[in-house]
Amino acid sequence: MRENAKDPQRHAQRMARKQRVMRERMARAQKDQGVLLVLTGPGKGKSSSGFGMIARALGHDMKVGIVQFIKGKFRTGEERFFRQLPGVDYHVMGEGYTWDTQDRERDVRAAEAAWEVASRMLGDESYDLILLDELNIALRYEYLDLDRVLDDLEGRPERQHVVVTGRYVPQALIDLADTVTEMGVVKHAFKDQGVKAQKGVEL
Amino acid sequence: MRENAKDPQRHAQRMARKQRVMRERMARAQKDQGVLLVLTGPGKGKSSSGFGMIARALGHDMKVGIVQFIKGKFRTGEERFFRQLPGVDYHVMGEGYTWDTQDRERDVRAAEAAWEVASRMLGDESYDLILLDELNIALRYEYLDLDRVLDDLEGRPERQHVVVTGRYVPQALIDLADTVTEMGVVKHAFKDQGVKAQKGVEL
Repeated sequence: MRENAKDPQRHAQRMARKQRVMRERMARAQKDQGVLLVLTGPGKGKSSSGFGMIARALGHDMKVGIVQFIKGKFRTGEERFFRQLPGVDYHVMGEGYTWDTQDRERDVRAAEAAWEVASRMLGDESYDLILLDELNIALRYEYLDLDRVLDDLEGRPERQHVVVTGRYVPQALIDLADTVTEMGVVKHAFKDQGVKAQKGVEL
Repeated sequence: MRENAKDPQRHAQRMARKQRVMRERMARAQKDQGVLLVLTGPGKGKSSSGFGMIARALGHDMKVGIVQFIKGKFRTGEERFFRQLPGVDYHVMGEGYTWDTQDRERDVRAAEAAWEVASRMLGDESYDLILLDELNIALRYEYLDLDRVLDDLEGRPERQHVVVTGRYVPQALIDLADTVTEMGVVKHAFKDQGVKAQKGVEL
């Protein structure tokens, strides 16, 4: 997929997308519309912020969808909490990526299966807010085709909100997004201070 | 209170606190302990992140306390959502600050009443996690005595977690914190693009 980035036809398609997005944005600027938010950067709080937005949406009786692209020991508290609630469609894909075994084909299959679920939500206007947790990581490792992801995000129902989290967001996704927050580390207990990760805050 | 910062005795007290904090942190580094997290900066997602941590803690059956130092049209979704849940002690203080009327005395009274509630939670080890939403704003406008706030945070039960949000965090609070995340704006729909604020995502 790296080759795609340098392919002139792909480049032209992306520039056309950018122009189209800018025009649509101008046209819709004063209308009610769904927003695409990206939470990225090395600092703590990206996924938490996405889950906080889920809570807020539920407070407005919205229907939400959650797809987690990395399953690990993290996020277990959120999963336990949100899974039990009405109005929540919660998916955790695969058994986590194979950082250890480096079985890339398995990772790609898991990411593609996750995107199938996300793609279905993005085509269903009954979802008011969709959280794609750690999607950026799957893009970073090129487990997913970036253009397919951008197409599905761009083609979603007009009033649907999407929150994407994870480090290393691709520039094309920044271009498509309405709001992008970069979370920086000022100080980190586990890096700087040797404090153990704590259940309920970190896990 | 600005004078306090320049007062030699206050300065010495703060330096002594800093030394004490560093020593305690070294001593406790490998023990289970509560962490103090600060979420600051101009970017979106500070309060949402705090509320996401609340959700995670509830997923671990923890008891949580929430004190909101600014009541406004924002945060209404979170309030509606979390207030109804067991294990949640939710306080919203005052009617919001008087940006318009500039009645500073009223703001100070509201902030102090909010801190009374927070202070009680910080003295009660039955609370596992406390969210002090927009506390930094009350400190920024010097509605609260910074040293009292620092004393209460420092003196809290050893295993209690605290999350503080808001722009303009004072340096002394950064010094006391275990983890500090600065949220920067890469792109903002409502500043850059003229998109209306959206219920469930922004409100």
